[in-house]
Amino acid sequence: MRKLSVFNSITVDGYFTDKRGDMSWAHAQEDAEWHEFVAGNASGKSAFLFGRVTYELMKSFWPTQKARETAKEVADAMNSSPKFVFSRTLTEATWTNTKLLKGDLVTEVKELKNEAGPDLMIFGSGTLIAPLAGAGLIDAYTMVLNPLVLGSGRTMFEGMKEKLRLDLTKTRAFKNGNVVLWYEPRR
Amino acid sequence: MRKLSVFNSITVDGYFTDKRGDMSWAHAQEDAEWHEFVAGNASGKSAFLFGRVTYELMKSFWPTQKARETAKEVADAMNSSPKFVFSRTLTEATWTNTKLLKGDLVTEVKELKNEAGPDLMIFGSGTLIAPLAGAGLIDAYTMVLNPLVLGSGRTMFEGMKEKLRLDLTKTRAFKNGNVVLWYEPRR
Repeated sequence: MRKLSVFNSITVDGYFTDKRGDMSWAHAQEDAEWHEFVAGNASGKSAFLFGRVTYELMKSFWPTQKARETAKEVADAMNSSPKFVFSRTLTEATWTNTKLLKGDLVTEVKELKNEAGPDLMIFGSGTLIAPLAGAGLIDAYTMVLNPLVLGSGRTMFEGMKEKLRLDLTKTRAFKNGNVVLWYEPRR
Repeated sequence: MRKLSVFNSITVDGYFTDKRGDMSWAHAQEDAEWHEFVAGNASGKSAFLFGRVTYELMKSFWPTQKARETAKEVADAMNSSPKFVFSRTLTEATWTNTKLLKGDLVTEVKELKNEAGPDLMIFGSGTLIAPLAGAGLIDAYTMVLNPLVLGSGRTMFEGMKEKLRLDLTKTRAFKNGNVVLWYEPRR
């Protein structure tokens, strides 16, 4: 069975986007050590799951020349990797190697996990996390804790109806102040 | 000048209390390593600043026999330390060694920081943090990141009007899954 992971940047007040959906604060403090970590991460083969909003945001950035100049490894990985977008309103998905899924989220993800292929990753897409975590379908969370307070924004766990206890499996603190935290849901 | 620090437990979704004000989830995973850290922390001499709600919560717990049995070092420190409660509605503060302050929060805290005495600490009391951080009066933050998603609650930075950038000064991961993060505001 394919593993489903979440990879998101969060602030110390728990937000993964500001209240307008902006995530650019997550790139404010980049240095060689951080770039090496991000590039290494991007080299792992994954397939990505997106909600519509994050899909459109990513599609408007990663195929551009600017993205290739800013973070070539990540841009190459995002453009070439298999991608799935969950949307009832989109009629087509034109970003390279993207499949539009219009069925029930939990059912579709159960099927995807049972298919052969690379592991699945959610990157952004707060609306996907609560229903999939609630259904026990998320196997791991990687959170990049940025040294920043936004004051307002959205948490990636919005809509969670029950407490979710996690096990911490690893941490790494970076010179730029980011702390990467690896968790798994407690079984 | 006295240093003003914040010490709070937070969840991975950024909350320091649940939506009913409950903080008991922060004590769910205690082991010998964690107890030793908490007891060592409590032995540092501090004076505490509280908003009314946290003051009343703490006053209803720390002087009790149950608190002494659960966490003797912390109970002794909380009961004997100098305490300041900011409230316009309280008419007296009856917990041992507590002074009621009814003036403007920022003005009162500036005066307190200029007086001689132990360093000042905020413990709970989310309503105090945004105005004092905004006025540049908070010198350090210690956050205990619990391996838990609450799904809803209050952030201790509610009401922050501007982004606050922090510098990470230290981290420590514990076997119980807590990660302690030490930050200072970026100067």
